[in-house]
Amino acid sequence: MIKLGVLISGNGTNLVAIQEAIEAKKLDASIELVISSRPKAKGLKRAHDMGLQTMSLSSDIYDLGPSAADEIIASMMRQNEVDYIVMAGYMRKVGEVILKAFPDRVLNLHPALLPSFPGAHAIEQTWLSGVKVAGVTVHFANEVYDQGPIIAQRAIEVPEGASLGELEELIHAEEHKLYPEVLQLLAEDKVKIMGDRTVRIFY
Amino acid sequence: MIKLGVLISGNGTNLVAIQEAIEAKKLDASIELVISSRPKAKGLKRAHDMGLQTMSLSSDIYDLGPSAADEIIASMMRQNEVDYIVMAGYMRKVGEVILKAFPDRVLNLHPALLPSFPGAHAIEQTWLSGVKVAGVTVHFANEVYDQGPIIAQRAIEVPEGASLGELEELIHAEEHKLYPEVLQLLAEDKVKIMGDRTVRIFY
Repeated sequence: MIKLGVLISGNGTNLVAIQEAIEAKKLDASIELVISSRPKAKGLKRAHDMGLQTMSLSSDIYDLGPSAADEIIASMMRQNEVDYIVMAGYMRKVGEVILKAFPDRVLNLHPALLPSFPGAHAIEQTWLSGVKVAGVTVHFANEVYDQGPIIAQRAIEVPEGASLGELEELIHAEEHKLYPEVLQLLAEDKVKIMGDRTVRIFY
Repeated sequence: MIKLGVLISGNGTNLVAIQEAIEAKKLDASIELVISSRPKAKGLKRAHDMGLQTMSLSSDIYDLGPSAADEIIASMMRQNEVDYIVMAGYMRKVGEVILKAFPDRVLNLHPALLPSFPGAHAIEQTWLSGVKVAGVTVHFANEVYDQGPIIAQRAIEVPEGASLGELEELIHAEEHKLYPEVLQLLAEDKVKIMGDRTVRIFY
């Protein structure tokens, strides 16, 4: 059983997928706290409707300096004794303050098969590039964006002539499956970062 | 029915896979000519044993200048009226002379899911990086290395704890399946480069 703190900025569809996996007893975890970087994020209302503890940080706080919001997040996550911080569509950078407070305990999901298409526009770039295989990646966050140790990846065949919207749907559907699965592996203590900073899963 | 000219430098395992697909009537093509950039390449002997026309270029020819070998290759391919030039482990650059003589008619196979791991050490880099999904790509060659229009890709799950040798074997096995399949799509005229330089397959 692991305790999770979830960071969101938008619709919170991955947050919902994680909470549903918990309720369906597929994931042995609890969401202790949801923090949104946008007070008006739809995901906040969803979290609230699911009975989760929520908190939001206004852009004023982020404007105070590069680590102002991070100090609050790290402190709140510690007070709630979370084991893992789960980035789920969080559109702000997670900085050193959080990474040092939760070393190898911050998870990120990226909508591409890293190292392909890092950055904020992965799905659009995937679509424009004409690749035939897309995918999703769950990795530990570290100082270098989208380069932390990879825990799991899933490939998705891009259907011929798929629209951007269709591709987005396929990728999000895969995310909603993969993220709870990876969290369950963590709950079962099957994930280990090796000496070379690659990740092994011990099934 | 398409006529192929194959460029090799090494063992020619993809060349063998293609010729076997032809002999098994899975691929409606003929290999008109095999050119090796190394006179001692094992693949040359294999080609010869399979009854194929072969030719090799010594490094002296490559040393004459950046397009000396390309002029010979383009000329030989033209004389043999090949429809497509198939790079199969060819370790030299295919330059402008060939690309202009065979526009959108030069195929390359890359042992990774481009744009991940371009360049000459794709499999080793894949293995060291700790990605969980590897793969292969068949694409049209163009002036920018490993960035031509992608025709087909196949993903491969990297087994937990796989050695470099094991991963190499999995990737090569997938290459040997995919390359003949893509050539058959070309033989059936199902491959079209669109206005945006992405490739559509019309099944």
